[in-house]
Amino acid sequence: MRHFDTRAIPAEEMTALLEAASLAPSVGNAQPWRFVRLRTPALREALATHVDAENTRAAAGYAEKGRHDAYRALKLHGLREAPELLAVFCDERPAAGHGLGIATMPEMLRYSCVTAVHTLWLAARARGIGLGWVSILDPGAVAALLDVPQDWTLIALLCLGYPEAPSETPELERRGWQAREPLADRLLER
Amino acid sequence: MRHFDTRAIPAEEMTALLEAASLAPSVGNAQPWRFVRLRTPALREALATHVDAENTRAAAGYAEKGRHDAYRALKLHGLREAPELLAVFCDERPAAGHGLGIATMPEMLRYSCVTAVHTLWLAARARGIGLGWVSILDPGAVAALLDVPQDWTLIALLCLGYPEAPSETPELERRGWQAREPLADRLLER
Repeated sequence: MRHFDTRAIPAEEMTALLEAASLAPSVGNAQPWRFVRLRTPALREALATHVDAENTRAAAGYAEKGRHDAYRALKLHGLREAPELLAVFCDERPAAGHGLGIATMPEMLRYSCVTAVHTLWLAARARGIGLGWVSILDPGAVAALLDVPQDWTLIALLCLGYPEAPSETPELERRGWQAREPLADRLLER
Repeated sequence: MRHFDTRAIPAEEMTALLEAASLAPSVGNAQPWRFVRLRTPALREALATHVDAENTRAAAGYAEKGRHDAYRALKLHGLREAPELLAVFCDERPAAGHGLGIATMPEMLRYSCVTAVHTLWLAARARGIGLGWVSILDPGAVAALLDVPQDWTLIALLCLGYPEAPSETPELERRGWQAREPLADRLLER
């Protein structure tokens, strides 16, 4: 099972994605995102091994719920075959922004990094590039593997590449894991 | 000082924004976002009063840093004049998604709600609508004011309206609070 074809992402395309992500809005304009491009094969294998182990543990949890086979049929990471791996961290003590908007909601720094990831994601899709966000992992273990500063929190580990088979329907919907649900069930008035 | 002109947002535009937000990607396709449209003038005033108090407290902190006047010159919320207020919560125990991808990173549910907020934000800008994300508040106090279920976490309190003066430059940059910084300072390789 593969999800990416074998084409590399041109360097100028990766730069365009990172430049787009850097234009994301952020609390206090703190721009707390930190991008780490994976270039070392041994690190890639270490990440894949870590996620495989967490995946096996998660699958065991689904055995009790009768969803084990459905879980095992999902493609949950492309860490070995994706042409590009990108880790996104949040600097929890950024010099920029002067603390604006984070006194009572320090999580706004992490949320700002999510807007950068989502901006990068949309820019990728607009260029025919697919993105998988891997979260079956221990964020601290990944930070340690990548040897980043102590104040950085892992937000996202991303696999990027050209999809083998483009689709407008989320994979989890296609595979019967979880369908889209109506907006009406998620909207209140007060 | 105003940031929104007096035009209301047509109902079909608000629906289009919420429909767009509902197409955001989410962990396990859990769609954990919950939207609360503010329709009650007394609740609007209660929210504004709460944020004003938090704002005064934050301003006091900047007195020590010599940024008090610069802070006070910023427009940090439009809760009294925005034609639409929208609160976005995260359901921390959603039925949808069957727990996929959140065993080791439960914060992925909150991050998924941020992708919905950002999708709504981009859809708004594409329609000429401006959005302000207010974070100078106590999330628990706002959840209590809006009387939402206990498992819901406040992600964002949003002010929406048509801007008086559109600009391509972030306001915090225009006002000299914090400029954009280069991507090169935020990019590593490993």
